[in-house]
Amino acid sequence: MRRMPSDVKSLIQEGAELTDRALEALIPGTDVVPASIHGAMRHSTFAGGKRLRPVLAIQAAATIAGEVPKGIERLGAALEMLHTYSLIHDDLPALDNDDLRRGKPTCHKAFGEAIAILAGDALQTRAFEVLAGLDAPPAAVVKIIGLIANAVGTVDGMIGGQVLDLESEHAKPTPELVAAIHRAKTGALIRVSVVAGGVYGGATADDVTRLDLFGRKAGLAFQIVDDVLDMTVDSAHLGKTAGKDQATEKATWPAVFGIEQSRRDAASLMHEALAALEPYGSRADGLKSVARYLVERKN
Amino acid sequence: MRRMPSDVKSLIQEGAELTDRALEALIPGTDVVPASIHGAMRHSTFAGGKRLRPVLAIQAAATIAGEVPKGIERLGAALEMLHTYSLIHDDLPALDNDDLRRGKPTCHKAFGEAIAILAGDALQTRAFEVLAGLDAPPAAVVKIIGLIANAVGTVDGMIGGQVLDLESEHAKPTPELVAAIHRAKTGALIRVSVVAGGVYGGATADDVTRLDLFGRKAGLAFQIVDDVLDMTVDSAHLGKTAGKDQATEKATWPAVFGIEQSRRDAASLMHEALAALEPYGSRADGLKSVARYLVERKN
Repeated sequence: MRRMPSDVKSLIQEGAELTDRALEALIPGTDVVPASIHGAMRHSTFAGGKRLRPVLAIQAAATIAGEVPKGIERLGAALEMLHTYSLIHDDLPALDNDDLRRGKPTCHKAFGEAIAILAGDALQTRAFEVLAGLDAPPAAVVKIIGLIANAVGTVDGMIGGQVLDLESEHAKPTPELVAAIHRAKTGALIRVSVVAGGVYGGATADDVTRLDLFGRKAGLAFQIVDDVLDMTVDSAHLGKTAGKDQATEKATWPAVFGIEQSRRDAASLMHEALAALEPYGSRADGLKSVARYLVERKN
Repeated sequence: MRRMPSDVKSLIQEGAELTDRALEALIPGTDVVPASIHGAMRHSTFAGGKRLRPVLAIQAAATIAGEVPKGIERLGAALEMLHTYSLIHDDLPALDNDDLRRGKPTCHKAFGEAIAILAGDALQTRAFEVLAGLDAPPAAVVKIIGLIANAVGTVDGMIGGQVLDLESEHAKPTPELVAAIHRAKTGALIRVSVVAGGVYGGATADDVTRLDLFGRKAGLAFQIVDDVLDMTVDSAHLGKTAGKDQATEKATWPAVFGIEQSRRDAASLMHEALAALEPYGSRADGLKSVARYLVERKN
């Protein structure tokens, strides 16, 4: 029922604010026992994330439904909880061993390793609890939960990508390996954000196929842009330690294909992504403009 | 449609075997990339667990449906995955720092900390994916997922109990604290195993209330028996390091109430638990006999 703002920055900001209010309501406060874990969950959830996945889910839902459907922000909040949980665990000493994220101490630096492990666990659990409470027909809710669980799982999903990434450090990156890592580690959750948003908006099987194609191409384009920015922008403009991928010899797109080819690949993937949305005409304008904005960003 | 075996040991063994076959089919093998994480998930899942939660779910479903309903073993497998994930994370160096569980190296000893953290994460994810694929009406599936996510969460759920337990080490245990830890850390998942099994079997709201009461009382009785066995049985008979609760000054029932009172409490809780099943007459015989067996066990 909500009006969609006409320019892309307002569109993103409005989606992020809607998500933040939902997250605020859905994650217990530090007045609820045990305080420490709720504090840790909130510390990492409210650490300045761009709410990219919720914004994509909202715009995908609006593309299908013709308007932003009521309650979609709870789906967005669940996606953001899953993303945040993966960052908390990725930052742990046994994995990437990062002390800072977005300029703030990582969860284990602020709360200790034990609470950080459990806070990540709890954000995953809470995400599925929130999904089970979505205001949509039960068959759509079951479908959304199955799709999302698959996308964060081990087989071509987020956790599988974390494992590949971990095991590929200091190995020579090949095109196949870097594509597999990107598809799984960050691509799968971005792709399912678009598809799940569409299902919430009432997507048919054909809609799901189109949104899946869009999400797959656009998700890879975002990640390539991320990799390029890591190599070309200094830390102050990036808001995180620049050049870290190179220092740890991570398998990135520019490491395999070079920066110029990476920029061309991102542009061409985005072209294919946008083409998948043609059947929706102007109803997909919001989703298209958000995707375009994300690949054209400078930090 | 399956016949229920007449004696309790066969009942438990048959339920455990049904669960094992489902777990075998539902957790990817090491022939699926990435091999390491699937190996780690299997290492801990097939480490000799008694499949207590699946057996309770199966018997609760049979109590309501009058027979063991088709496909219930997938619900059982999901519950066992959640239990296993909690053990893997609990054993980590940052938490309990255990090298052995059931006489085998813990997950991080066998696969390293990074893979153990991700294997726990992945078992949680896979559990929710399996639940979303249950062969039951979508409304029942959504209800089961919501109940289970709540039971493993932070507010009076499993993760909340792990946090309380962690933060109570070396603190003087009070009756309120030990009751809160037991209710949350182990009680909530046992209780929801019974309730979710019932919902799968077609439970009404009244059935849910009765099964919830049974699960709450019986779950606490099992945990008290566990605590007593930890203090009174030697390691060889227990299959794990005996006396560990005392050594780490964990808040246990006998530490607060003494061994004799603990035994009396377990018996009286079991009496109340069984009373909640009276309306089902002989249809609850399986569930009752399993519960009785569990509080009367010697290791």
